[in-house]
Amino acid sequence: MERIRDWACFGGQQQVWRHRSAVLDCSMEFAVYLPPQASGKAKLPVLWYLSGLTCTWENMTAKAGAQRYAAEHGVVLVAPDTSPRGTDLPGEHEAYDFGSGAGFYVDAIEAPWSKHYRMYSYVTEELPKLVAEHFPVDAGRSGIFGHSMGGHGALVCALRNPGRYRSVSAFAPIVAPSQVPWGEKAFSGYLGPDRSTWNRYDATALAAETGWSRPILIDQGSADEFLETQLRPELIVDACARVGIPLTLRMQPHYDHSYYFIASFIGEHIAHHAAALKG
Amino acid sequence: MERIRDWACFGGQQQVWRHRSAVLDCSMEFAVYLPPQASGKAKLPVLWYLSGLTCTWENMTAKAGAQRYAAEHGVVLVAPDTSPRGTDLPGEHEAYDFGSGAGFYVDAIEAPWSKHYRMYSYVTEELPKLVAEHFPVDAGRSGIFGHSMGGHGALVCALRNPGRYRSVSAFAPIVAPSQVPWGEKAFSGYLGPDRSTWNRYDATALAAETGWSRPILIDQGSADEFLETQLRPELIVDACARVGIPLTLRMQPHYDHSYYFIASFIGEHIAHHAAALKG
Repeated sequence: MERIRDWACFGGQQQVWRHRSAVLDCSMEFAVYLPPQASGKAKLPVLWYLSGLTCTWENMTAKAGAQRYAAEHGVVLVAPDTSPRGTDLPGEHEAYDFGSGAGFYVDAIEAPWSKHYRMYSYVTEELPKLVAEHFPVDAGRSGIFGHSMGGHGALVCALRNPGRYRSVSAFAPIVAPSQVPWGEKAFSGYLGPDRSTWNRYDATALAAETGWSRPILIDQGSADEFLETQLRPELIVDACARVGIPLTLRMQPHYDHSYYFIASFIGEHIAHHAAALKG
Repeated sequence: MERIRDWACFGGQQQVWRHRSAVLDCSMEFAVYLPPQASGKAKLPVLWYLSGLTCTWENMTAKAGAQRYAAEHGVVLVAPDTSPRGTDLPGEHEAYDFGSGAGFYVDAIEAPWSKHYRMYSYVTEELPKLVAEHFPVDAGRSGIFGHSMGGHGALVCALRNPGRYRSVSAFAPIVAPSQVPWGEKAFSGYLGPDRSTWNRYDATALAAETGWSRPILIDQGSADEFLETQLRPELIVDACARVGIPLTLRMQPHYDHSYYFIASFIGEHIAHHAAALKG
């Protein structure tokens, strides 16, 4: 594992690392923000941020302003990439919503994707283990959040692993990928036509069978161009209400799908996680 | 004047406008952040941010996290571009430190630059007038700051116009362009070989003759790769000390020249300006 960038930021360090992923069978980069508290002896809570379509570790890292709040709360922030890189599978780079930059946080079972596109195992297993080995984090106090495709990923990771994550939130998540065009395209390609396999990566479907019982926070801009076609937060609100999972959906008037929206509310999201992770 | 982008952000609006500049004889874009207070009846203080080499309005707007603080203090934030655009003069796009993206906030007198490269008049005269006409700002309460080349620009604008700006600060500014390679190249090209004309755009030279007497705040990363060759903040510290201008230079250990540095301290800069502008 090699550190390729390092910036002082809000009294801590914003770092970028490159490593060989066995799960994805390729070289990957991820960002880690170490707050000032990381130079002490105590292990810190760790908060995972999953990005949306077309993104890398850089979008949130450069544009969300998250480091200020991570420094305030003493939380380590990790931002993985959104797909395997450098693999050049047939058609991998042709669409913004499938292939590179669009891993959808699933373990693909269809060829040729199944060899590399195993982002679910990468973000829930391989990378957390690597991070726990190299940084002063207490993996027992992990939270996860994300944006759009990454909000989908965060919800799925939490609902499938209530023992591994203590907190979850999302910005404008794809809450029911099985029911919207982005998800149908991705799941058809990565998982194949058998929709019964899709439910394990669909937060709205998972709500009915999860052991998750902690508060879920979702912020959604009401001027988001993808709201009615791809995001449809009412589906997970209903699913959680049916089983008594406490979900707060905050519709934010005038906000769109951009990082100006995320920056405006990420402080409240990090406070939501810190409250659960520091307890 | 045409609004080309508009994002909700921290309860206000981050806008981008395009207009025809008579001074620069070309079409220009600039960003304006209107905090939530802009929807009230009172006119607000206005804070000008000048960007560095290679930048447009977008760098600060997307990466500095400034909107949070502008919203807290009720300050309108304006970010101009760094040079004329779309002019395609001979050699204009060949170097990162001269021509497009590198206007250096001077009024060029050498051909062919003198026809368009009049960024000093643009940022101190034409654009403030346009902004005052179209937005709820009180031009009598104007502050100015910037980064690197833009820190140079902010210092020059303030020191030459103590009646027009009430506050000034800078991140890693080029404080003495006449004495460093970036400035010597730019001033030779835009202003010609007669160095007596350069002093009007050199903050360190201007310190000896300015009427400016208010506090100047400069933050400088001690790990900035340009510190000793291009920035040399000790030169303006000495010049201001000689004439009794109150300047605070804060050397920030470990910080470099990036927006991670700017984001870490822009809240304190905006507070510095707000204290002067709201008084």
